[in-house]
Amino acid sequence: MEFRFTPIGVVHSCFKEKFGIPRQPGLAPDARALLKLHPHLGLKDSIRGLENFSHLWLLFVFHANSKYKKLLIRPPRLGGVRKIGVFASRSPHRPNPLGLSVVALERIEVGGDGSVDLHLKGVDLMNGTPVLDIKPYLSYCDVVSESSYGFLDTMETAPPLSVTFEKEADEFLMEIQKKGYNFLPSLIRQILALDPRPAFKKKADARGKKHYSVRLSDFDVHWKYVAGECRVTRIEDLRTQRQLLIS
Amino acid sequence: MEFRFTPIGVVHSCFKEKFGIPRQPGLAPDARALLKLHPHLGLKDSIRGLENFSHLWLLFVFHANSKYKKLLIRPPRLGGVRKIGVFASRSPHRPNPLGLSVVALERIEVGGDGSVDLHLKGVDLMNGTPVLDIKPYLSYCDVVSESSYGFLDTMETAPPLSVTFEKEADEFLMEIQKKGYNFLPSLIRQILALDPRPAFKKKADARGKKHYSVRLSDFDVHWKYVAGECRVTRIEDLRTQRQLLIS
Repeated sequence: MEFRFTPIGVVHSCFKEKFGIPRQPGLAPDARALLKLHPHLGLKDSIRGLENFSHLWLLFVFHANSKYKKLLIRPPRLGGVRKIGVFASRSPHRPNPLGLSVVALERIEVGGDGSVDLHLKGVDLMNGTPVLDIKPYLSYCDVVSESSYGFLDTMETAPPLSVTFEKEADEFLMEIQKKGYNFLPSLIRQILALDPRPAFKKKADARGKKHYSVRLSDFDVHWKYVAGECRVTRIEDLRTQRQLLIS
Repeated sequence: MEFRFTPIGVVHSCFKEKFGIPRQPGLAPDARALLKLHPHLGLKDSIRGLENFSHLWLLFVFHANSKYKKLLIRPPRLGGVRKIGVFASRSPHRPNPLGLSVVALERIEVGGDGSVDLHLKGVDLMNGTPVLDIKPYLSYCDVVSESSYGFLDTMETAPPLSVTFEKEADEFLMEIQKKGYNFLPSLIRQILALDPRPAFKKKADARGKKHYSVRLSDFDVHWKYVAGECRVTRIEDLRTQRQLLIS
């Protein structure tokens, strides 16, 4: 038996690659995305009243992982060592690659042509994510106050890293903020403070010799680790010459 | 574009029909269900560590409603009058009939033959529900403390109805509790206290002349409304003669 689902829309996100995406939603409040409902499905009526809700559930497809399924995984919160079952984790490598994230709804834009754009904040969604369903977040059924989660209860979450910018990166940010990218410094701070490196890379780079980069929004952000701090060395503008002339 | 998913298991629930199912999970703590993972999928490893979690998310298919889709619905909490978009509601009549419920995990039974049974409590799932995914409930990413929901904030939830049993029903319950059905009185109380009647039926039956029944577990429960109270008149045993001889 099989069930077939057609995406209702697609996510346009600041996260262009898997590396750097926060491991849960809400961790980077400035991580913004646009959920564009597919206009040919005529879903304009289906969002009536949705603007009243501060938060939404998105049910989506882990489209970048769908071929890669595992029954046992090593969650990053357990240091990447201990193996647990995939159903005891929120890993994307699931028998059915379905994702579930709560996101903050900023506003909804409905175009005259029937287009519907949901402006979202605090996302952990990759660009291009197909969305299957939107549900309102209802505290009276979604908040379980007395829930517990055995082995994770005892795990310390790593404290956020401090993030500094070298001169070149700092100057770039000063300029780009004037051009409509005023969210960029806080987005970079939020993402890098979470230390996106997988556990095994942290171990391998204990002395902080490596250089890292991540694609965020229209930029490649380069950094290294110095004395336990995260130091941004350079930010590369990926917009084409034409986009630059417009902005 | 289409995505295909194969159920990982099926729900065996005390709810045999849609009528009577609580409108959210957790409302009837004694509503029990068994989620049986399909043995031929070999998912035994995938639940390792799951026993540590008190609560789980189930992503499932609204299998009894899948042909019946609407863009606008009248949620019961708004008195069945006001129409809102289906994405602003948790209605089962969705473009993609995907359901999301948090349930309490009581225990897991793994059989020598590779069978995996998850014993659940507080469900709002109909018998036969196909389940696509299990995720642990993680308070640090699933609890949004500052969420708000416009029009529902102002809605009063109806107070629970008081439930009484007439002599025949009461005697039946006394007997059946000795036979392994000790959950039955509290299950009936919890379900009927929620008043499962749709809004339009409540209006039509303002004088409480009608008789109602619902199938719960192995029983048909009959009741009527008397002076705003719910009075159980009779409980019918649906088990076959053979089952009766065994129990």
